[in-house]
Amino acid sequence: MSGLRFFHDPASVAIIGASSDPEKIGGRPIRYLAENGYAGAVYPVNPQRTEIQGLEAYPSLDALPTVPEVAIVAVSGANAVAQVVRCAELGVKGCVIMASGFGETGDEQGLAWQREMLDAAARTGMRIVGPNSQGLATFSTGAVLSFSTLFTEQQPEDGAVAVVSQSGALCSVPYGLLREAGIGVRYAHATGNDIDVTAAEFAAEVVADPEVRLLLLYLEDISDLDSLAEVARTALARGVPVVALKGGRSEAGQKAAASHTGALATEEGVVDAFLAKHGIWRARSTRDLVAAAELYLRPRTPQGERLAIVSNSGAICVLAADAAAEEGLALAELTDTTRAALEAALPAFASVENPIDVTAALLTDSSLFGKVLPVLGDDGGVDACVVGIPVAGRGYDVDRFADDVARFEATSGLPVVMAVPQSAIARVFRDRGIVVFADESEAVRALAQYLRHHALMAAARSRALAPRAADRRLAEARTALNESEGLEFLARIGVPAVEHVLVRSPAEARAAIDRLGGGRVVIKGCSSEATHKSELGLVRVGVQAEDAEQVVAEMIATLAREGLADEGVIVARLVKGVHEAMLGARFDPVFGPVVLLGAGGIHVEALPDVQLLLPPFSEQDALDAIGRLRLSAVLAGVRGAPPVDLGAWATAAVALGEAMLDPDLAVHELDVNPLMLLPLGGDVQPAVRAVDAVVVRSR
Amino acid sequence: MSGLRFFHDPASVAIIGASSDPEKIGGRPIRYLAENGYAGAVYPVNPQRTEIQGLEAYPSLDALPTVPEVAIVAVSGANAVAQVVRCAELGVKGCVIMASGFGETGDEQGLAWQREMLDAAARTGMRIVGPNSQGLATFSTGAVLSFSTLFTEQQPEDGAVAVVSQSGALCSVPYGLLREAGIGVRYAHATGNDIDVTAAEFAAEVVADPEVRLLLLYLEDISDLDSLAEVARTALARGVPVVALKGGRSEAGQKAAASHTGALATEEGVVDAFLAKHGIWRARSTRDLVAAAELYLRPRTPQGERLAIVSNSGAICVLAADAAAEEGLALAELTDTTRAALEAALPAFASVENPIDVTAALLTDSSLFGKVLPVLGDDGGVDACVVGIPVAGRGYDVDRFADDVARFEATSGLPVVMAVPQSAIARVFRDRGIVVFADESEAVRALAQYLRHHALMAAARSRALAPRAADRRLAEARTALNESEGLEFLARIGVPAVEHVLVRSPAEARAAIDRLGGGRVVIKGCSSEATHKSELGLVRVGVQAEDAEQVVAEMIATLAREGLADEGVIVARLVKGVHEAMLGARFDPVFGPVVLLGAGGIHVEALPDVQLLLPPFSEQDALDAIGRLRLSAVLAGVRGAPPVDLGAWATAAVALGEAMLDPDLAVHELDVNPLMLLPLGGDVQPAVRAVDAVVVRSR
Repeated sequence: MSGLRFFHDPASVAIIGASSDPEKIGGRPIRYLAENGYAGAVYPVNPQRTEIQGLEAYPSLDALPTVPEVAIVAVSGANAVAQVVRCAELGVKGCVIMASGFGETGDEQGLAWQREMLDAAARTGMRIVGPNSQGLATFSTGAVLSFSTLFTEQQPEDGAVAVVSQSGALCSVPYGLLREAGIGVRYAHATGNDIDVTAAEFAAEVVADPEVRLLLLYLEDISDLDSLAEVARTALARGVPVVALKGGRSEAGQKAAASHTGALATEEGVVDAFLAKHGIWRARSTRDLVAAAELYLRPRTPQGERLAIVSNSGAICVLAADAAAEEGLALAELTDTTRAALEAALPAFASVENPIDVTAALLTDSSLFGKVLPVLGDDGGVDACVVGIPVAGRGYDVDRFADDVARFEATSGLPVVMAVPQSAIARVFRDRGIVVFADESEAVRALAQYLRHHALMAAARSRALAPRAADRRLAEARTALNESEGLEFLARIGVPAVEHVLVRSPAEARAAIDRLGGGRVVIKGCSSEATHKSELGLVRVGVQAEDAEQVVAEMIATLAREGLADEGVIVARLVKGVHEAMLGARFDPVFGPVVLLGAGGIHVEALPDVQLLLPPFSEQDALDAIGRLRLSAVLAGVRGAPPVDLGAWATAAVALGEAMLDPDLAVHELDVNPLMLLPLGGDVQPAVRAVDAVVVRSR
Repeated sequence: MSGLRFFHDPASVAIIGASSDPEKIGGRPIRYLAENGYAGAVYPVNPQRTEIQGLEAYPSLDALPTVPEVAIVAVSGANAVAQVVRCAELGVKGCVIMASGFGETGDEQGLAWQREMLDAAARTGMRIVGPNSQGLATFSTGAVLSFSTLFTEQQPEDGAVAVVSQSGALCSVPYGLLREAGIGVRYAHATGNDIDVTAAEFAAEVVADPEVRLLLLYLEDISDLDSLAEVARTALARGVPVVALKGGRSEAGQKAAASHTGALATEEGVVDAFLAKHGIWRARSTRDLVAAAELYLRPRTPQGERLAIVSNSGAICVLAADAAAEEGLALAELTDTTRAALEAALPAFASVENPIDVTAALLTDSSLFGKVLPVLGDDGGVDACVVGIPVAGRGYDVDRFADDVARFEATSGLPVVMAVPQSAIARVFRDRGIVVFADESEAVRALAQYLRHHALMAAARSRALAPRAADRRLAEARTALNESEGLEFLARIGVPAVEHVLVRSPAEARAAIDRLGGGRVVIKGCSSEATHKSELGLVRVGVQAEDAEQVVAEMIATLAREGLADEGVIVARLVKGVHEAMLGARFDPVFGPVVLLGAGGIHVEALPDVQLLLPPFSEQDALDAIGRLRLSAVLAGVRGAPPVDLGAWATAAVALGEAMLDPDLAVHELDVNPLMLLPLGGDVQPAVRAVDAVVVRSR
């Protein structure tokens, strides 16, 4: 733990605006510090009192016996500003500003106050949390500098989970849900407006705590990328899963953009790509944020995603298999040895296929789970188990089932989740430390998150997750290349582009075709000012040599008629792909370079089928992204079409990613649509060809 | 209540295989009948006892003082069969056979026993429930003819919900979850193998009970369609929602089929279409089955789907809006009057847009919900409310919030759901009768189900939901039409097909083109034996008049070379659609006629984008289905493409549906791919054209 240690274990805390009422904002931290065993000095500051909640109170900061290491500011408006300025002057290390009415209101006064506090802090190196912060809570030291109602409602207990949130509510909700489930929480920080210390910065600090084994984040925006990259590096090195929730998925602040990539590489899409790249799981609701917590806290790492399902109800077997299919998890194929062993263990009429229905015979033969589960553990092809017990109670030896499941989990080392709708029965299993959900779909969904997240982490571990360098593309103006320049640029950066010749007069057309080796060609008017070439009649596909002169002449005439700069006429080889793909990139002011790949054609915006990648990424990353496209269902060859060269597409994507990382190339936006996908192992190598290019550079 | 009344309120019940142990299968019904106030006579039958659980026991059926109205058969194997036969002979009205080891094992003995029991019952009109049945429970009369463990674990209470399930577990699970939530259950039936009375038949019976206001079904297969249609008719007439869960979504028993429609109109897809048509909601998990139960039981019908979201946390506002977008629910646009009233009610810094963040000011101003909610109720554009309280507890006037929400719900008549993660706080709202979920995504999902289901029911109410007629297509052999016959058939049934001339020799080609009005044409070799015409070179698109003779000659030669019956050569007008769609139909042995519409082209199976409809259906039904296609994003015209005539497509689909209902037309399978979609209001009317046709008829 480094730069923010004093917030977690301060030698002394002053509460400015301290209250005798332990339910008031200025009163709760005093009560919480006392209740949670904080060992440092606590200084209530309140000019109206000499004693507060049993502690000596002081009229002002200046009257304190020592300079406090941390100050909580629970007064508001101009007074808060004055107190923060004085803290800085006195050498306080950090302030937690609980007052609201600052930048979050959007009004000028609030913003000016924030600037004033920041300036004062900067002069002496003091750090500020908030304003509008619910506060910080560290239960290992008792440093509860927070007024969260939840610490009253749910008894704190130190544990292995850290919660860091910009929102107070979204700090309290996971804290409460975890505590209701009996899970200990070490940190519960709600940072507020983040004018200085960000939630991500705290996340980077707490994830380095050797006792922390799970980090839950709620972020209102993803902006402090360097801290998040640090969170990811530390978490991956330590094997700590990080789950992040960010609202606003549905209303991406998507600006009008010149290119498809601009329209398709939305802010929320880039957030998804950023988190995935860094091995951080994106939760989709508050429940998602905590649903898999118990699984994450087990001391093991899952090795695969193949499920075995066991239940005393055939119906639950089927429903759990449906849920697995919905989550994209495969069922394990059992070996013959396993099947023979199951046949010996199960009643004669039971099936020995996965899912495994131990049948209602469980009521009379309580040993069934104890017999079946070890067989599955020995199979070698089972990575995780789902055990569903929809019905139990009087007549069932639930204690024995619980012992059998717990023993299996301990000896096999495999993740096990249970689906038990009866709360009284569920409790028996929970008491043995088993992870239990109320229904099969929840159980499978949480298990899928856990298994997938570990796979995401494994992939992320191989990546360089460095902070971003400054980039001159942020502020500068743009300039569009014409198509000929664009195709040449692509070829230069390693994206195979269609061969073409730029001609200036009809007379050059035949020679150009000869240079391309003859055959039918594509002829296009070339102008950096032309945006909808097809609609203007500036594209002719499949022109024969004898017509080429005439077509070039028409193109020149059309450019003149439309008042577009005549930058020549492109004569290009005719390339017909097996499929049309798309490859693009843009420079995002927050996230930096973003590469997009997807299905191409004219409907890319109306029927998007795209994946985003943040460079640098590997060819395998690109192949994985291609595999997630709907289009991928046809790429291996269907209905007589040959398989296409996915490796060539991935290589081109990697090359584009590298180019996007080079600030000297200054690519602002780039669109290739279509990128023709050609047969694997065919005559044309590399087997992709960009046949159009829109390139916008910074200048 | 009609044909199965005696199962619900029998004058007397015999238990064959009665046990003194109230936990045994033969003992539990005796205990449950006593505990649940059953007023009729109970006759334990057991040759070894004279008294069982305080009742006089009888050695045999023949020894009973009267013939029992209903007999529970809790003995197994051949003895069960003998008892059932004797019941029939004595004039017992109905048997509930709990023993397993019959048809569900798949072995010959079990099947033979089932036939024997059925035959005996048929001779005297006795009805059989089971075998392998957990039994029937009717809590209004105390007629609990069931051994479900759950009636011990969760105290029964009569109520407005009926649960009917083929599976014992999937009867017990919803019963238990409902009872845990304090909801009364009147019927909890688990029918088993359904050799005579089906689960659907019971469903039709109980949904007619005037006290029943919600029916939950678990079906292992959807086969008794006539009973299900009756369930739907009664339920829709009474306004009772029906929610059905059926497993096996992921592994559709999808047989190899000659047509795309065969491959795409999978069993599970048809089940979806059948349930939707009948206004039955299909749940996707056990939790889904009961999640919206409390909403359904409210005495009101929702009028629309526009949500208002209110919370004391901005983060929850955003997350709930995300959840609404995920479920496809729109947020209400507030009127200026509403916004002005909100501005007066809320703190100055709060926004007056929907979602409405009442802010943390709720802690100090407990009146905020009471002020804000009535304003939303008066808006006129709000159909339902989601209220999220992620944090409350000491310092918050939760009782007042609960009063305000309950009063709003009562006076506005709008559905309200709450998201309250703290269980102690949730209880305060539940105690006021408010519907509460643990998180915003669950709350919105349940609300979406409730609102959507009522819309589905409203649409279904206008439909004729008749039982199916017998159809000679079930058993007969098939015969394939050639393409020319297929196109003519389409035209005859009202599906516009491309104009074509069938020629027999090259010499007829020019005259054929003249008859079609000249221009480029499509030429295809015609043979009912040809299935992959393109691959065989039997399709040539865009042939010019001067080449036609030659092409026809080639086609004839190709047919001969491939050994295919030469049924002529098609010369057809060249029709280029704005988009390629697909239209198909098949006759399903269980569901009868099924119509499919979707995106066309060569990748319909690899990248399916289809919707199924069960005829008869309306043009509006077809338009709604088209609107659910991904393809619909481009049909209104994008990127310079004109809008296409969706009405013409819908009309063609309706015509195909009508044809499928006509057993004399005897269509077994039919595929149109592509169906060319032409510009709305263009020269070609009707603005769709089938350019290919595969028609397989029964003969």
